[in-house]
Amino acid sequence: MRAEWIFSLYEEIPAPSLVVIGLPDVGLVGPIATSHLVKQWGLRNIGYVDSPSIPPVILFHESSPLLPIRVYGGYKGNDFVLVIHSDVAIPPQAIHELSSFLVSTLLEKKAGRLFLLGGIAVQDRLNIQTPKTYAASIDPEALKYARSKGIDPIQEGYIGGIYAQIIKEAFKNRLNVLALLAECFLNYPDPGASASTLQAFSKLTGKDVDVKQLIEQEEEIRLKLRELMKRTMESMKGTGKEYEYTIPALYV
Amino acid sequence: MRAEWIFSLYEEIPAPSLVVIGLPDVGLVGPIATSHLVKQWGLRNIGYVDSPSIPPVILFHESSPLLPIRVYGGYKGNDFVLVIHSDVAIPPQAIHELSSFLVSTLLEKKAGRLFLLGGIAVQDRLNIQTPKTYAASIDPEALKYARSKGIDPIQEGYIGGIYAQIIKEAFKNRLNVLALLAECFLNYPDPGASASTLQAFSKLTGKDVDVKQLIEQEEEIRLKLRELMKRTMESMKGTGKEYEYTIPALYV
Amino acid sequence: MRAEWIFSLYEEIPAPSLVVIGLPDVGLVGPIATSHLVKQWGLRNIGYVDSPSIPPVILFHESSPLLPIRVYGGYKGNDFVLVIHSDVAIPPQAIHELSSFLVSTLLEKKAGRLFLLGGIAVQDRLNIQTPKTYAASIDPEALKYARSKGIDPIQEGYIGGIYAQIIKEAFKNRLNVLALLAECFLNYPDPGASASTLQAFSKLTGKDVDVKQLIEQEEEIRLKLRELMKRTMESMKGTGKEYEYTIPALYV
Amino acid sequence: MRAEWIFSLYEEIPAPSLVVIGLPDVGLVGPIATSHLVKQWGLRNIGYVDSPSIPPVILFHESSPLLPIRVYGGYKGNDFVLVIHSDVAIPPQAIHELSSFLVSTLLEKKAGRLFLLGGIAVQDRLNIQTPKTYAASIDPEALKYARSKGIDPIQEGYIGGIYAQIIKEAFKNRLNVLALLAECFLNYPDPGASASTLQAFSKLTGKDVDVKQLIEQEEEIRLKLRELMKRTMESMKGTGKEYEYTIPALYV
Amino acid sequence: MRAEWIFSLYEEIPAPSLVVIGLPDVGLVGPIATSHLVKQWGLRNIGYVDSPSIPPVILFHESSPLLPIRVYGGYKGNDFVLVIHSDVAIPPQAIHELSSFLVSTLLEKKAGRLFLLGGIAVQDRLNIQTPKTYAASIDPEALKYARSKGIDPIQEGYIGGIYAQIIKEAFKNRLNVLALLAECFLNYPDPGASASTLQAFSKLTGKDVDVKQLIEQEEEIRLKLRELMKRTMESMKGTGKEYEYTIPALYV
Repeated sequence: MRAEWIFSLYEEIPAPSLVVIGLPDVGLVGPIATSHLVKQWGLRNIGYVDSPSIPPVILFHESSPLLPIRVYGGYKGNDFVLVIHSDVAIPPQAIHELSSFLVSTLLEKKAGRLFLLGGIAVQDRLNIQTPKTYAASIDPEALKYARSKGIDPIQEGYIGGIYAQIIKEAFKNRLNVLALLAECFLNYPDPGASASTLQAFSKLTGKDVDVKQLIEQEEEIRLKLRELMKRTMESMKGTGKEYEYTIPALYV
Repeated sequence: MRAEWIFSLYEEIPAPSLVVIGLPDVGLVGPIATSHLVKQWGLRNIGYVDSPSIPPVILFHESSPLLPIRVYGGYKGNDFVLVIHSDVAIPPQAIHELSSFLVSTLLEKKAGRLFLLGGIAVQDRLNIQTPKTYAASIDPEALKYARSKGIDPIQEGYIGGIYAQIIKEAFKNRLNVLALLAECFLNYPDPGASASTLQAFSKLTGKDVDVKQLIEQEEEIRLKLRELMKRTMESMKGTGKEYEYTIPALYV
Repeated sequence: MRAEWIFSLYEEIPAPSLVVIGLPDVGLVGPIATSHLVKQWGLRNIGYVDSPSIPPVILFHESSPLLPIRVYGGYKGNDFVLVIHSDVAIPPQAIHELSSFLVSTLLEKKAGRLFLLGGIAVQDRLNIQTPKTYAASIDPEALKYARSKGIDPIQEGYIGGIYAQIIKEAFKNRLNVLALLAECFLNYPDPGASASTLQAFSKLTGKDVDVKQLIEQEEEIRLKLRELMKRTMESMKGTGKEYEYTIPALYV
Repeated sequence: MRAEWIFSLYEEIPAPSLVVIGLPDVGLVGPIATSHLVKQWGLRNIGYVDSPSIPPVILFHESSPLLPIRVYGGYKGNDFVLVIHSDVAIPPQAIHELSSFLVSTLLEKKAGRLFLLGGIAVQDRLNIQTPKTYAASIDPEALKYARSKGIDPIQEGYIGGIYAQIIKEAFKNRLNVLALLAECFLNYPDPGASASTLQAFSKLTGKDVDVKQLIEQEEEIRLKLRELMKRTMESMKGTGKEYEYTIPALYV
Repeated sequence: MRAEWIFSLYEEIPAPSLVVIGLPDVGLVGPIATSHLVKQWGLRNIGYVDSPSIPPVILFHESSPLLPIRVYGGYKGNDFVLVIHSDVAIPPQAIHELSSFLVSTLLEKKAGRLFLLGGIAVQDRLNIQTPKTYAASIDPEALKYARSKGIDPIQEGYIGGIYAQIIKEAFKNRLNVLALLAECFLNYPDPGASASTLQAFSKLTGKDVDVKQLIEQEEEIRLKLRELMKRTMESMKGTGKEYEYTIPALYV
């Protein structure tokens, strides 16, 4: 049975030129990046996404209450930017329904380009000073554009999890989507990887994002997010992530 | 599949100005508080809440039979007060359905303010003489009012479980709700915390509640409720409580 | 999904003045009692209750085939008596549906008083010569009547399992019900307790039941029913029985 | 959710006077017997039974492909005989649906008498030279007829599993059914028991079945069917078989 | 609940004379063979098969994104050839739905002959220089034709898994199907077996397939596909494969 999802906004918004999604996954790269972006660009909390599939939690930040999956918005230059940020891991059984819900909602809102900020776990992350960010999409045009801006597509292998599913849904429904996946730790929060995805995002959109703070506070952030990383790892079982170190039969 | 819930009253009631809910959770703070409140204010058992999701039990007290989730009511001054008290733990899979059922029922009954009495487990509870009670809500007005009466909102972090879900549902449906959560033991019944929530409730409503007996009988109560605490702990797994010691990504 | 239940009778019957139910639970008190009652009063097998929720078994007794949940009937004095007896444990997931099915069927048949024969496990059963039988119901009138005949209501605590659920359903639908629960062993068949419930039943209905044989053959019966007790214990997990040694919050 | 079952015939058939069912259960008595009967009487494969509840397998025999549950038919004297034989164990969750499907299909086909060939596990099977075959049914007439031909009904106790369920369904729908259950090993294929059920079947129908080969090849057959026995044991958990050594409460 | 399946093509295609399916199963024989065939014959990726039952993954190959179950097509001589290739294991619960979806889709597309490329695990594979390929089908004509071309049908025993189910569905819907199953390793990728199925396919269709490369790169391929083999083994539990070493009752 499909759970009912809602996308609720506190105010009317224009068609967003840019949408950025940050959901918990390897290295928590996505939500660290969107949380930072919201602060840097001064976006406002303008709504939320909810469903009975989401754990029954609410958050408090500086004594203000917040729903766990929030929508932020505001202008950056002439573009209205929409950010979808989650502070809870998405349960495996909700991946398909949330993916198709987000894609159909963004089409309704006449969204322009969609960016998914996230990571690809690499085993030698410790030895990587500046993590490289790769582009992932099924749309060859989007990948070509990324390459023209210096962001290489993923070369070989599987990507799994909710971003893979959003990419599939966007492809089927002709929504322009690009995942920006930085090399990251599997199960340590990785603000350095978040900084890399934001820099790639900046290159592709021509809009500044200052990531200095993310890199300076790397250790502190890592400690703080230990527990959320743990919840996220638990939710990642059986979501296709197990394919990520696998080589497909087509390579032979 | 949603189970069918019923809210059955033995008599007609006026629109309640105040509704108080006490459901088993950490430290059993809620039901200890509502049980005490019912006695102190001399409220009558005027109905019950039931569903196939609730374990098939009935209770006897002083040879009188009782359903496990009961509705109490009566006047306190000019206000009609409604109390919903449960002697059984709410199964995890019933959290979403019960939350939305309670909120929609209270809206139908034209309920005024809703108070959720409960606890927040703190690790050093043993060293706390007088547990502090925090306010939780998504409604900024409700939190502002609480602060004006000396009850601080939760500052940082997640709250999880059925109260978080009721707060979300109330917020979506514009029902005025405030959770009063006292510092408490995780898995020991905590009458001292119940006393604190009742004192906070008293401050916010301007109505007296004598909590002396709760504090005097603390040890005795703790022993008596050992088993109910055990049932409650079993039901708390996977209800979002695991987020309560977690720091969200937005803090970074 | 609710399984389909049927109540099938081989003959037309008058509205029964008395209905007696004996379902496997602690000490197998119920079915031992109804089996004995059927023999003592010479009732005939006049139908059966069935559903896909019931294990796929049939029984043979003295080379005659029998369905596992049977309906017996016949006159005792001027009263038509209906007995529902089960030789299989009721699976936990069938408790709610069977309870509401039985209550609605008995209302259709215009049944008079309903008696549930069963037990309450007590830890010191070994030291009890004559087990006491308690009355349980939500209807205060029924309990008052029981007390007037020397059968005390349960004083304090939870009762759980299918009888608790039948009592709840009967209460909601205004069917006159009284459970007669004798002190018994948890997981040994307890014919002595069955004898006690039958004596209480006799007091309340003014109809003789000779229980001498039950008491004489106690040891033999206990041995014979070892295996059925085992099946029943397996089916009792998660049916609210775990609440039976628990003290509710309202006691504090 | 009920899975869809189909009963597909490759040719039109007359109303069968005799139907014989052999499904894997204790000692694999049923399918060993029906497999032998089909060969002895030269019946043809005229159709199959199938459903998504059945494991996705097909069989090959002498290089010919076969569906796992097959229908055989042909004349024996003036009687058209239909045999339903399975080479796969019936999953527990399919027992209720297959039973009611088979009974309603056979009623549609205007089937005459239905025989279920199978076993009853006995603990001292090793010491039994010639296993005795018992008759089981809910229809007293069928049992009386069996006894008149020297086949005793089961005297006391439960029978469980798919045959018990088919007997119940046949009884409810007035289809003439008789199970012939030979004493057998629980978890060793038992061709000797199959021979006994076929001899009983022969007595009841007046039609010859030569079982010499079954008895001669007993050891060889037992070895061959080891693995199918294993699959069958796995499928028998939770199908009411656990009641078979149990004594009902009505015996007391 | 049946998940929704889609078969999406990027272009219109003629009725395919030949359809070849390669799904992960024992030895990964199928996808290794179809991957090779696509390269040898220069077929284009013309579409995909998808469903919420499939793990949420996408693939990248030479920096190009790919869906996990792909449709390839192109002309070989005068015949339009359609290949369905999967780089993800099919979850057990999806076997029935995918099988009937593929068969009904191919009927709609007016497909000609369907070939399933796969393996049969044999225990002494190590000692087999050139694995033999067997034909499997329920259609005697298809098997007769295979034998006429030197491909023997499977002689005795069960085959299980998704190909068995596709064969059943094709048989019920009169779609011409032949599985070509080469002797293979159970849980090592087996390009040698893939080569054998392709050679058998070549014999039956009269169309050349050069398999030299598969045999030369056997070791390398085996290493590369270790992980995909692991995913596939996990998905094979409970799909009827456990019957493959089993002897049916009809052999006795």
